[in-house]
Parts: sequence; C-alpha cells; structure tokens
Amino acid sequence: MQCPAEGRTATLETMLNRQQPLDDFYAIIPAGGVGSRLWPMSRAEAPKFLHDLTGSGNTLLQATVERLEPLAGRQRIMIVTGRAHRSAVEEQIDELADHNIVLEADPRDSTVAIALAAAILRRREPDVIVGSFAADHVIDDWRGFRRCVSEAVAAARDGFIVTLGITPTEPAIGFGYIKADGLADIEGAPSARRVDSFVEKPTIDVAKEYVESGDYLWNAGMFISRADVLLEELAHSEPELAEQIEELAAVWDEPEKRGPAVDRIWPQLKKIAIDYSVAEPAAARGKLLVVPGDFDWDDVGDFSSVAKLHNHGRRDRLAILGDGGTVLADSASGVVVSQSKRIISLVGVKDIVVVDTPDALLVTTTEQAQRVKQVVDAIRRSGHSGVL
Amino acid sequence: MQCPAEGRTATLETMLNRQQPLDDFYAIIPAGGVGSRLWPMSRAEAPKFLHDLTGSGNTLLQATVERLEPLAGRQRIMIVTGRAHRSAVEEQIDELADHNIVLEADPRDSTVAIALAAAILRRREPDVIVGSFAADHVIDDWRGFRRCVSEAVAAARDGFIVTLGITPTEPAIGFGYIKADGLADIEGAPSARRVDSFVEKPTIDVAKEYVESGDYLWNAGMFISRADVLLEELAHSEPELAEQIEELAAVWDEPEKRGPAVDRIWPQLKKIAIDYSVAEPAAARGKLLVVPGDFDWDDVGDFSSVAKLHNHGRRDRLAILGDGGTVLADSASGVVVSQSKRIISLVGVKDIVVVDTPDALLVTTTEQAQRVKQVVDAIRRSGHSGVL
Repeated sequence: MQCPAEGRTATLETMLNRQQPLDDFYAIIPAGGVGSRLWPMSRAEAPKFLHDLTGSGNTLLQATVERLEPLAGRQRIMIVTGRAHRSAVEEQIDELADHNIVLEADPRDSTVAIALAAAILRRREPDVIVGSFAADHVIDDWRGFRRCVSEAVAAARDGFIVTLGITPTEPAIGFGYIKADGLADIEGAPSARRVDSFVEKPTIDVAKEYVESGDYLWNAGMFISRADVLLEELAHSEPELAEQIEELAAVWDEPEKRGPAVDRIWPQLKKIAIDYSVAEPAAARGKLLVVPGDFDWDDVGDFSSVAKLHNHGRRDRLAILGDGGTVLADSASGVVVSQSKRIISLVGVKDIVVVDTPDALLVTTTEQAQRVKQVVDAIRRSGHSGVL
Repeated sequence: MQCPAEGRTATLETMLNRQQPLDDFYAIIPAGGVGSRLWPMSRAEAPKFLHDLTGSGNTLLQATVERLEPLAGRQRIMIVTGRAHRSAVEEQIDELADHNIVLEADPRDSTVAIALAAAILRRREPDVIVGSFAADHVIDDWRGFRRCVSEAVAAARDGFIVTLGITPTEPAIGFGYIKADGLADIEGAPSARRVDSFVEKPTIDVAKEYVESGDYLWNAGMFISRADVLLEELAHSEPELAEQIEELAAVWDEPEKRGPAVDRIWPQLKKIAIDYSVAEPAAARGKLLVVPGDFDWDDVGDFSSVAKLHNHGRRDRLAILGDGGTVLADSASGVVVSQSKRIISLVGVKDIVVVDTPDALLVTTTEQAQRVKQVVDAIRRSGHSGVL
C-alpha cells in the first residue's frame, strides 16, 4: 500500500484540500553538500542547492522551501547552512527570519545539522515535530509529497521516527535502500510500515531483485519525528555528540553566549550521517517507520539527472542552463551550462554535457556524468583546487 | 607511373641528393583563406596558416617555407598575404625580404594572388619558373615532394603548365580530381602525364570508381610553370584581368607609384580561382601536364584532419593543441585546442573536438567536423561576426 493511493482518513483529505499548515510541524532544510559530480557548475562557493537545475526558474533551495510552505508555513522553515552561504541563501529566500537560519562554522555532516536544528527548536517549542528535507532534491508531485509527509507527521506524533521511502521506478544502483516490513497500523498514517533494515547501494542484479520484491524503497534521507524523540535516540547512540549539541542549543538564542560556545564546541563535533546515528539504531529498536511514497523524486546527483529533469526525459533535446553566452546548437542533445559570456557552438554531439564557466570547462556525456567526481578528485590532487 | 618511383634521370637524382636549389625556380606561397571549418581556432585575424596544427612546433606557413627552401632557396620564396597578416608573417618567417612579400589590399581569390606574384617576378627575371603552393597544406614526405616538383620544373621549362596531382589513398569526397591522360614524354619529367580534364568533388560512389581506375588524382592546387607562360594563358582566358595585373606589376617595385595604382586598380580585380582562369583553359588547349605524386598530403580542412595529423592516425589518442590552460582527460580521444587560461576537463568523450578560445567555444566530433562551416555561416547571420 502506498500513501497516495488508498486508506486515507477523512481528516487527512480535508487537510490536504485546504492546504493548511500542520500546527506542530517545523521543517528543517540542511543546505550543505557541494555536489562534486556537478562541478564546475556546483562548487564550494556556489553549491548545487543555489542553482536552478530544472529550468523552473527557482533554485533547488527555493523549490524546497515552496514545497514545504503549505505543510509547515513560511515562518516555520529553518535552513541550516554554512556561514559562506548566508548572503546567497538570504537573497534567494524572502522573509527568512534570523531565528530560521542556523549557520555552521564548518560542515559536520547531517547529524549535527539536523539534531542541532531540532534541539534549538525543541527549546523554543517542546512538543515540536521536525522534518528534515535536503535542499537539493527535486520533487514535482507536491501533492503526493505533502500527503506522505502528513502521514509521517501523524506517525511521529505517536513517538516514531519516520522516514519517507521512495517507491523505486528502476533498479538504481546509486541509492541506498530501505527494506520495509509489515504495516504499522497507526491512526492517520495508514500506509506507514515498520522498517526491517537499511541496505547500502546494491549491485545492479541485487537492485533488480529489490525492485521486483516490492519491499525495498529508496532511502531519500527524509526524516520526520518529534524533536525530543530524535534527540533521545541520538543520546542513546552518540551520547557525547548529543550532549554537545544540547549545550550549543541551550545558548543558541543568546547572542553573547552563542559565539564562545560555538568556538569551543564546534571543532569537537563528530562528523556522522544521521542514517548511522539515528535511523539505523532506531530501526534496530523498532522505533523507525517508513511511509512509502510513489511521488517522483530526484537527488540531481549528476548532469545526467540535470538533462533528464530539464528535457523531461526526451533524449533528443538540449537543455540550456545559465544565461552567460549565446548557445548555437546544430544536431546537439544533452545539457549545456553557460556561465561565461562566450559564444558556444555545439555541432552534432549527442547526449553531451558541456559546462562552461569563467575558469573551468567540462565536456562529458550524460552516460559518463557519474565520473565527474573522479575528475574533481584529480583536480584536487593536481593542485588546482582554486577551481573547485 | 609515379614520379617518386621509377624512371628518374641521373641528373634529377644528383640534384636531389645534393639538395641544391633549382637556379631558375621561384616559389610563391599564397597565404590567404580563413579556414572556416577550423573556427574558432582559425579566424579572420589569425587564419589557419599561422597555426601549428600538426604538433611539429612549426606553423603551417613555416613548414611550407621550410619544405620549399631546398627547391627554391630561402631568398626565392615569395609570400602573398593580406595586409592584416604582415606582422604575423614577418614574425614567423625569419629573413623575409621586403621584396618577397606581396600584400593584398583585400582578398581577390587565387588568380590575383598567384598571377600578380608571377608578373612581379617576371619583370625582375624574365625566364623565371614559378610554382605556387598553398600556405596551409601538410606534406611530411619532403623528399617525395621535392622529386615531383623537380620533374614539374623540368616540364615547365618546356613551356607547359604543370600541376601536381596526389595519388588518392581513399575515395575522398572533399577534393576535386584531375583525370590524367597518357605520358607526356618530357625529358627530366618521366612521370608527367597529359591532363584529360578537371572534375568537381564527386559523390562517394563516383569517388570509389575514380580511385579504382588509377587515372584520377586529387587536385591539390599546386601549379608550376614559366611565369610568362602562365600570364600568357591568363591573357587568353581573362584578358582584362591579365592587363590589370600587368599594370600593377609594372609599378610594384616603385614605391611612389605602387600605392596609387593599387588604390585605383585593386577594387576592380575579378575574383576567380586559378583553376578556372588558367588550369582548365590550359588543359583544354593541351598545355597542362600533371605530375602524379604519391607523397602524403593533407589540406587540414577540418578538425578531423587536425586530430588525424596530430595523433598519427591513432583514434584512441587525444591531441592537445595550444598552451592556454590545463587539460585533464579521463578516457577522452580526439582533439582539444586550449587557447584560454581555463582548466579543461574531458570525461569519457570519444573522437571529440573541443576548441576553447577566450570568446568562443566549439564542441563537436571528428565525424561531424565538416559541419563547422555551417555554424560559422549561422554565426555570421546571427550578427555575432565579432568572433569570426
């Protein structure tokens, strides 16, 4: 059973139709991650989430905020990002209150980003339910997405940590999977299932078995729970980290104390993904549920995704991103990113990826786009990190 | 019979071995032609012949001069080029005397370039034999080339206009062909043949027949004849143009008269290829011979040729031209021209052509490289001629 399909309660339907925010819900958007495989468009200084990768006119971050607004309300969306990105984020997101932006001294992986936001929010609002949603994913079916989140919030009220698992549309080898167990039978969350286990990125043969079985869902890294439940789970698995985060949260809203606390504590914070610090331990203790979602979802991992999203799957089209120069194409398909002021001519190149920036040029194909990360590693080793 | 093979006279062999210049021979190098299919590397301001397209360390013009030096002597090579290229040509060619450079007010096609040089030279030296050789062709087998030119010069002394026809190595459709007739039986030019006719670029099927027949040779546009014979032929077919050229030549070596004559006459000069004004009429009158040459020859017409020349035919290699930026290649083959200061990354692109210049970028494949000319036409129409 899938959450957008059957078995929804009347209350849920009513809420969706009225599209009123959920009272006790707060959305957290961890906006980090450079997106190496999108180099040289995405870089340390201008990471993936600050770009419009779909041709929608919105950046990925803007689209994420808009998608969450009907669920949480505009004033109940918190963005966690690096200090270097503050001005870019504030420029892109209107009416972003100071108390809704958490600036990281340096990146400390997803546990710190999400748990710190959760801890800050719990001090402001003890019963708050938080949901964390990456700033750089693309979902077009907002209605389907909201329906799933609403179920997840209902289950979170019952004390569960809930993740959204995406129904696979193909045997992808680039994602981790969640093995779902039986229905959890939660009021307001009819499609929520217990979680058997998390599994790492599979081989193609294993991925095919997963998809056929119907029990495996893509791990999209979206987690919904009461803030106190999440922090309690963290305290079990990573007590020291949980304590440091609480210490930071305790002074976060006191400007004269926050700085010294960050200076003292931040460098000691452990880098660990929330999958390992919270989700997997919770699953092992039977506290994790998954709400399956068959809405579209893309993590825009590489230029192949960019081309697909921009060209709506049509392989004969050429997506043009950026407004730098003039692009002249003759029998070309794929994607071109134009960030310099030059004339770009593409002649008879199929499934091509051309990324033209003032100091770096990338030419690859949609099929080879995954390998861009290796190039980035090579550039780092070769001492040209200035362009990364 | 081919000139480099059999039937050479002892005198010819001796000359070749001693590599002494031919006393009465003067080489003319028409250095014009932008090379549209090599855009954006080759441009109006920096045409093809000014570039090193083979990785030899010499530009095409420099290699042409070096190839002709053993035949004509360094002081008997005349370059005909546009006023805009004077300083670039002088920079590339050491010891180029003023009397050996003819500057064109604007391009007037090959008849004007070659016949004007011939007329100027004849006034200085009535019995001179001239040979015209494009500045942007590549020939590696200099010895084979010189052997053929020496035969052609011998036949020219007998009053013939002689062209070198290249023995086809494949059924090329990008060249015109010369249909050769029987041996001409000329002393010192044992392989010279009479010419039946010139034929335009054929279809592939026709080209295959040509190659199989053994009677067809590529028209490489190289002509050798006495200057007076060439001008006489021109006077037959294009009397007005011949007269205008003589008028210019008459005052060319008088600085105070040359300028006014050029201002008055140049704008009226007819644009016509020497194939039509001299070669074809001479062939019709039985005055044209062809010396077949089986030396390698390439007119470097497009980036496919550049890749082939640079990679010595190996399709798995990546040729890197220019010294602008840093090129990082991962499973890439073809050719990259780096004229900007950027990092260029090529990932998993086969037979690719990337030309990176400060104001224009081209991405195509070696297979599609012929189509670059259409792009250049499109750019001209679109009002971006500044990059051409």
